[in-house]
Amino acid sequence: MRLTEAAALALATRLLEEHGAPRDHAVLQARVLVTADMKGHPSHGLRRLPRLVERIKRGLVDPQMKGTQRWRADAVMEVEGSSGFGPVVAMAAIERLAPHIPDLGIGLVVVRNANHLGMLAHYVEAIAAMGFVGIALSSTESLVHPFGGTRAMLGTNPVAIAVPTAAEPLVLDLATSLVPMGRIHHHAATGRPLAEGWARDAEGHPTTDPVRAKAGAIAPFGDAKGYGLGIAMELLVAALAGSALAPDVRGTLDSHFPCNKGDVFILIEPSLAPGLPARLSAYLDAVRASPPAEAGAPVLVPGDRARRRRAAASRDGFDIDQRLWEDLNALSSSRVLAFEGLRS
Amino acid sequence: MRLTEAAALALATRLLEEHGAPRDHAVLQARVLVTADMKGHPSHGLRRLPRLVERIKRGLVDPQMKGTQRWRADAVMEVEGSSGFGPVVAMAAIERLAPHIPDLGIGLVVVRNANHLGMLAHYVEAIAAMGFVGIALSSTESLVHPFGGTRAMLGTNPVAIAVPTAAEPLVLDLATSLVPMGRIHHHAATGRPLAEGWARDAEGHPTTDPVRAKAGAIAPFGDAKGYGLGIAMELLVAALAGSALAPDVRGTLDSHFPCNKGDVFILIEPSLAPGLPARLSAYLDAVRASPPAEAGAPVLVPGDRARRRRAAASRDGFDIDQRLWEDLNALSSSRVLAFEGLRS
Repeated sequence: MRLTEAAALALATRLLEEHGAPRDHAVLQARVLVTADMKGHPSHGLRRLPRLVERIKRGLVDPQMKGTQRWRADAVMEVEGSSGFGPVVAMAAIERLAPHIPDLGIGLVVVRNANHLGMLAHYVEAIAAMGFVGIALSSTESLVHPFGGTRAMLGTNPVAIAVPTAAEPLVLDLATSLVPMGRIHHHAATGRPLAEGWARDAEGHPTTDPVRAKAGAIAPFGDAKGYGLGIAMELLVAALAGSALAPDVRGTLDSHFPCNKGDVFILIEPSLAPGLPARLSAYLDAVRASPPAEAGAPVLVPGDRARRRRAAASRDGFDIDQRLWEDLNALSSSRVLAFEGLRS
Repeated sequence: MRLTEAAALALATRLLEEHGAPRDHAVLQARVLVTADMKGHPSHGLRRLPRLVERIKRGLVDPQMKGTQRWRADAVMEVEGSSGFGPVVAMAAIERLAPHIPDLGIGLVVVRNANHLGMLAHYVEAIAAMGFVGIALSSTESLVHPFGGTRAMLGTNPVAIAVPTAAEPLVLDLATSLVPMGRIHHHAATGRPLAEGWARDAEGHPTTDPVRAKAGAIAPFGDAKGYGLGIAMELLVAALAGSALAPDVRGTLDSHFPCNKGDVFILIEPSLAPGLPARLSAYLDAVRASPPAEAGAPVLVPGDRARRRRAAASRDGFDIDQRLWEDLNALSSSRVLAFEGLRS
């Protein structure tokens, strides 16, 4: 079924408020989830809302918390997340650090014990909108096997980078796994086999059976290099945030454990060299205009596709699983109309 | 032929001193080149020395320069490299920033107009030895085509990360190209075809002919994700250092132009959480001990192989192309014996 942005935001916000979230916390958490759906990443969208509500009910998420911030050093804000919403804790710290960036030039936020951030693009886009370069990292449960290995030892360890330009920023947001665990689950739900090389089962054997893969491990992207990057991110986050390593991480995918992963955000003021922002956007335009490998499939810059999808979803609405919508409405005290706010 | 570490360092240092480098500059530049050979990366080793000497003779490298440093912000050291040796300019700035890291928590060095850094691992290893997390980035000439594109628009944009632990640090050092341009040249020199998918020719057509590939473009590693990472690094370096973008970069591979790429180094003090360094090394040991995909081929952590090769080369010497050794000796006023310092 088709849903409008306004309807999705209204339902998600109301549901979170009904479960104890202050309005501004509910609005931000809803925004992060709905934007993921609009960008075409339902695994990080409203599909996560029922579990979030369940976690609130069980006391694993405290929707009131903003996190306890302390300056660990002149340019480092360390945050105890106190089981708050991931987006609320992260954005509060980023907004506290940001006014200092013109003086410092570079600054770091590290967060422990906050809940799932959703898509990291949200944070680096916000940082880029302030005029800064943004880097975001987060750790997860063990889901990825090492290159040359067979057991899940690494998180999917996403990394996001945004660089402001004179036009749209470059926005990179990728997991260091070959495919998202959400896609494995989707194949399992729809009974489609996996491609060769995507995953191994719980015994470490290669498998194309998504049900067996769910209990096993996903391959890292890009062979040895992607694995190297993933494990470097794993260590970076734990070393900077002092948070758990993948085999000990809980709470981003379950309704049973407090969330103990770590989040890292770096904010940097770009060089003030004259004409630099225009030089960056001209370069990106040259890349987009360079000859494509397939006629009619122009070269893209990271962020282009998500930006286009989001704009289309904002204009035309976006598709959502009907059962999910029913489930969400069932969790709320009153029904939201799916076409609320849709321009026709 | 086999060469000792001592002989390699002696010849490279002498050669650089004979061409105007102060002793400490010559020692550092020689160390960076020789270590690359010892780690099994001859493309970044002594093979680069004849061109470096040629660049000195032509005034494109000024071996006296340490770079002009200025604090761009409280935590940012900006350096005009003034055509100095890459390693000399970079390490001088890193060593100036490092004593401030315990107070700042995080700091940034950006360098413009210094010469080729060699392997980035050198810098992050040095930063990790100080007890800090290190990140190093550098830009290069256009050699890599976009995912879905056909023309060289990106540099090979290497990234290095080191994280100190209670044992050896994790040391990642990778280029965001599928293979190094050095390997394409090696295939060309030895007449071996390239693997499918590695490269395109100057017209943008896929090719397995290394001679045609030399004039074309290498594929990014890891398809769309590796491309995304590479172009994010491209923009990051230019945005932070204010340096040239790949299509305008010159001077890391030629003997005709001043070097105008940029270098970025980030130094971060890890969390002081009790027991953290031991937790990090225990995790890496668990990854190494996890079941391998092929019996007898244990899982490696980034840095393991290079560390092992370097130790073996230090003990047993290492192989070098005989003609390169003759060429290097011919450039020097006196001959170095290849077995100088070899323990037997």
